Amino acid sequence: MRDVCIIGVGQTKVGEHWGRSLRHLAADAVLAALKDAQVERVDALYVGNMIAGEAAGQEHLGALVADFVGLRGVEAYKVEAACASGAAALRSGFVAVASGLVDFVVVVGVEKMTDTTGDVVTQALALAADGDYEAAYGLSFVSINALLMRRYMYEYGVPHEGFAGFTVNAHRNAMGNPYAMFPHPVTKEEFLAARMIADPINLLDSSPVADGAAAVVLCPAEVARRYSDRPVRIRASTVATDSVALHDRRDPLFLEAAALSAHRAYEEAGIKPEDLDLFELHDAFTITAALSLEACGFAPRGRGTRLAEEGEIALDGRIPISTLGGLKGRGHPVGATGVYQVVEVALQLRGEAGPNQIPHARLGMAQNIGGSGGTVITHILEAMS
Amino acid sequence: MRDVCIIGVGQTKVGEHWGRSLRHLAADAVLAALKDAQVERVDALYVGNMIAGEAAGQEHLGALVADFVGLRGVEAYKVEAACASGAAALRSGFVAVASGLVDFVVVVGVEKMTDTTGDVVTQALALAADGDYEAAYGLSFVSINALLMRRYMYEYGVPHEGFAGFTVNAHRNAMGNPYAMFPHPVTKEEFLAARMIADPINLLDSSPVADGAAAVVLCPAEVARRYSDRPVRIRASTVATDSVALHDRRDPLFLEAAALSAHRAYEEAGIKPEDLDLFELHDAFTITAALSLEACGFAPRGRGTRLAEEGEIALDGRIPISTLGGLKGRGHPVGATGVYQVVEVALQLRGEAGPNQIPHARLGMAQNIGGSGGTVITHILEAMS
Repeated sequence: MRDVCIIGVGQTKVGEHWGRSLRHLAADAVLAALKDAQVERVDALYVGNMIAGEAAGQEHLGALVADFVGLRGVEAYKVEAACASGAAALRSGFVAVASGLVDFVVVVGVEKMTDTTGDVVTQALALAADGDYEAAYGLSFVSINALLMRRYMYEYGVPHEGFAGFTVNAHRNAMGNPYAMFPHPVTKEEFLAARMIADPINLLDSSPVADGAAAVVLCPAEVARRYSDRPVRIRASTVATDSVALHDRRDPLFLEAAALSAHRAYEEAGIKPEDLDLFELHDAFTITAALSLEACGFAPRGRGTRLAEEGEIALDGRIPISTLGGLKGRGHPVGATGVYQVVEVALQLRGEAGPNQIPHARLGMAQNIGGSGGTVITHILEAMS
Repeated sequence: MRDVCIIGVGQTKVGEHWGRSLRHLAADAVLAALKDAQVERVDALYVGNMIAGEAAGQEHLGALVADFVGLRGVEAYKVEAACASGAAALRSGFVAVASGLVDFVVVVGVEKMTDTTGDVVTQALALAADGDYEAAYGLSFVSINALLMRRYMYEYGVPHEGFAGFTVNAHRNAMGNPYAMFPHPVTKEEFLAARMIADPINLLDSSPVADGAAAVVLCPAEVARRYSDRPVRIRASTVATDSVALHDRRDPLFLEAAALSAHRAYEEAGIKPEDLDLFELHDAFTITAALSLEACGFAPRGRGTRLAEEGEIALDGRIPISTLGGLKGRGHPVGATGVYQVVEVALQLRGEAGPNQIPHARLGMAQNIGGSGGTVITHILEAMS
């Protein structure tokens, strides 16, 4: 097994790209990543995508994107794990390079969600839930998370305003990210006044439906320095699963797969949570951010929101999260998100995060969550010394 | 890089399973494969599936199936490459075990196509084609293949009856397979009299829409004998791509990705085509069978149908194909097909193919084609001596 490095990153601005099709977005990210890596040819291309079949009228994205970026012939396929599809594609690329079967791989996450109507997207996103036992009864993806958030608020006595800090932090950080969808501030007052989506989740608890694509180029660590002055090593890559249906969990308020995936990753990397300089977590909803922090060992159960209230998640806090906006501020093109997270960690470790740079960042973690916690994929990255 | 073996296989009968849901079919195959391998726990589960989002209202199949078969927690995700999704999932499993990152993997291909209406399935299958440049203009998946077949007949002067041998052979072989959807004979006269679907493709040129699931258990070759008396080694695993759109090919009558994938596989395995004892090819349509034989080196261009006419594809012929019915006779639950093919090759190499057993079969090949040739995945298997 070989060590694997990221030697190139690329991304499109997240937003409503009515003038760019799915394949154009993917190509923009792939070509940017190849250029960044100074590589023209790769051995394989893996695509992370969740709902192109439903929202963009296209499956078979591996061959489609490979051909469109000038890589016709190479190994290519799509990997799907609901909203964790991006990280699942990265996992595939990591395993392929680690195996020695391929040397250079490009991984791209892409999603095109805004070329269709809201009801189509809502139905497509519900495919991440249990079709027979959740979606069939009318539960949308937001409403599943609303049940979870309401229960959390009840069990731990946390008021809705306790979650404000996550949104305020994400939007503040998005202002320093030229690729973010919402580069503007949100105040606690605005958060509290936002209109309700699925009680208690309001508009500013929720990450937005968006288009976007992000890509990374991987290669064996032993040759990484030939292509990059600042290669980033993948120190851990782990996937864990739980029941897809929320009601089948032993304890719905504890993200078991997030805990399993994170703790396996700490072990693989030989580190402790406190060694991390930043954590790109999956803040699809504010409740998800709180639960992730708890599952990954940054807060006791029921205390995740305290980290936001006390500023510990800020760029200069104990564990900076959503450092370039997170899902809330950068945007959440579902199948692309996992790759955006990793691109952002890599930028921090390369010292290229602009005004949002975490000084001397050396170790960062990205965690991508599929469904309400059914699949959780964690990557720990390190700046190669 | 480690050698990888198949130590267990499982499959459901292919057909219209109105009483079994997607997850039940997948579980039937996975549990049968685990039982066959005498393994209770695996490290990862990869699902090959194409259209569950559209036809069965469910994505996120990795976690869903893992949980349902009692493997909650393990690494799991779905892999998609249109009709080559099954083989793409096997490829992922092969790479994972070869890498040394995981030891035991179960790969399952599953598709549930008959719980919805024909127009939904037709639209879903067209997602394998180029959405913007083929499907958007009304081309269905059958009609794309009809264009290809018409051109082939014109270029090479092959009449429609030239293709009859593929269907007659597939149905004859399906009679010896208890898992086949159509275990009954078809005569050349019946073939010629079948009703037209998309001229020149008639009903008996086409494989059927069906439900089904097939699974294999993989492990490192060095421990395979502990679990199986007849382990089957994966000697080659290759993926190649071409343009998704037929009209973008350099030469639509030559399956470049099939040739590339097959010839890479021959090289990886260190064999020649004539060393193979059988070839499970992707006979989604009779034209696909002819083109595959030509691309893989078994017939000169324009002469693929001759092999069928002259009996060379029969069980006692030069290169037996569709030995347990193929896509035409066993059935074609799209995302599952690639795994069915590999299960069937493994059964032949284990000497368990019943009345259809190829005597002394030692080397077999399975080739799974996505779209009209956009993705082609080839596996060469060998009975471990």
